[in-house]
Amino acid sequence: MDAVIDIETLPLRYQTPPDWAVSVLSEPLKLLNDHAHLEKKAASNALELLNRWPDPRPPENWVQAMTAVARDEVEHLAVVTRLLARRGGKLTRFHKNAYAAALRNLVSLGAGRRELVDRLLVSALIELRSCERFALLAMGCRDDDELALLYRGLWSSERGHYRVFLELAREVGVAAGVEERWSDLLDAEAAIIRDQPSGPRMHSGVE
Amino acid sequence: MDAVIDIETLPLRYQTPPDWAVSVLSEPLKLLNDHAHLEKKAASNALELLNRWPDPRPPENWVQAMTAVARDEVEHLAVVTRLLARRGGKLTRFHKNAYAAALRNLVSLGAGRRELVDRLLVSALIELRSCERFALLAMGCRDDDELALLYRGLWSSERGHYRVFLELAREVGVAAGVEERWSDLLDAEAAIIRDQPSGPRMHSGVE
Repeated sequence: MDAVIDIETLPLRYQTPPDWAVSVLSEPLKLLNDHAHLEKKAASNALELLNRWPDPRPPENWVQAMTAVARDEVEHLAVVTRLLARRGGKLTRFHKNAYAAALRNLVSLGAGRRELVDRLLVSALIELRSCERFALLAMGCRDDDELALLYRGLWSSERGHYRVFLELAREVGVAAGVEERWSDLLDAEAAIIRDQPSGPRMHSGVE
Repeated sequence: MDAVIDIETLPLRYQTPPDWAVSVLSEPLKLLNDHAHLEKKAASNALELLNRWPDPRPPENWVQAMTAVARDEVEHLAVVTRLLARRGGKLTRFHKNAYAAALRNLVSLGAGRRELVDRLLVSALIELRSCERFALLAMGCRDDDELALLYRGLWSSERGHYRVFLELAREVGVAAGVEERWSDLLDAEAAIIRDQPSGPRMHSGVE
C-alpha cells in the first residue's frame, strides 16, 4: 500500500472537489452498495476482455494481467459486500452507472485491435477516476478507521490497475495513435463526470 | 487440502473409468486450455448468479458464498493459465462445452426461486463431476509432480464448491422438492456425461 496519497499526480482533466466526499459519505450504505456493484462489474469486465481476446499477443503478459485484475476485483467485491452486510446494508437488485455507460459509448465497436485499445483505455479511465475518488474518500472519513483503511487500500490497488490497463493499451495499439486517443478520452471523461447527477455513488457529480 | 482422495464418496451415478485420465493426459496442453476456459466460465457463473440474484435471503450467507466461489475460480484460472503459458500453450479463441450446455438446458427458466434452485443444482453437478475428474487426473499423472499437485488441490477445492452450491440450493428451495430434483438431475447428468465424445477435455466421454 502506498504511504502517500499523491492525488495530484493523476492525469485527470477534472478534479473532483473534496466536498464530494463529505456529501457521499453521509449515506455510507448506499455508497458501499454502489461500490460493490462497481467491483462486480470490474471483475466481469476483466473476464469479458479475456473471453473476447483470449490471447492477443502482444502484450505477452495479457492473460496474467487480466486474471490478476479479475482476482483483485473479486477480492474487493468480497471485502465491500462483507462490510456492507456487517453494517446492515444489502446488495440491491438494480444498479445503473450512467458514467461508465457514457464512457463505453465512446468505444469503437467491431474495430478489432482498435476496439481492444479503446476498451483498455476506457477501463484505465474508470480505474483512474475511481482512484481519485478513493483518495478523496480516504481523506474524508478519518473518523471511521475501517472505511479509511478500505479506501486507502483501494486507492493504491486501483492506481495499479489504471497503469496496467494503460500499459496494455499502449502495447496492443503500438504506433496506432494511442497517446492521441488517450488524450481525447481524458477530455471526454472530464466532461462526462462533470455532468453526472449528485448522489451517494462512486462516480457521481457534485451539486 | 484433503489428505485422502475418497472419490467413491461422491454421489455421482456414472463413474468415469480411470482410463479416461490416461487418455486425456496424453494431450496436456489441450486439456489445460479446456480447463482454463472452464475456470473462466465458473468465475463468470458465480458473478452472473450474484448479478441476477443479488441477495435472495435465504440463504443468509449468499453474497459471501458467491464471492468466495468467484474468487477461488479466478485464482484457479490464474494458476491454470500460468501453467499453460509456461508449458508453451495458448488460450484458444473459441471454446465449447457441450456437457455444461446440455446441463444448462435442464434449468427451468423464468421460474423465480425454482430457476435459482436449478441453477445452483446444475452448478453443484458441474463441480461434482469436475471433482471426480480432478481426482482421476491427480491419480493418473503421478510422474508429473506439478500437474499432480494442481489436480489434487483442485479436487479438494471443487468438492468444497459442490457442497456449497448444494447447500445453497437446499436453503433457497426449502421444502420445495429440492432432494427429488437433485436426484433427477444426478440421473440426467450421468446420461449426459456418458454421451460426450472423447477428447482432451475435462468433461469428455470415453471411447
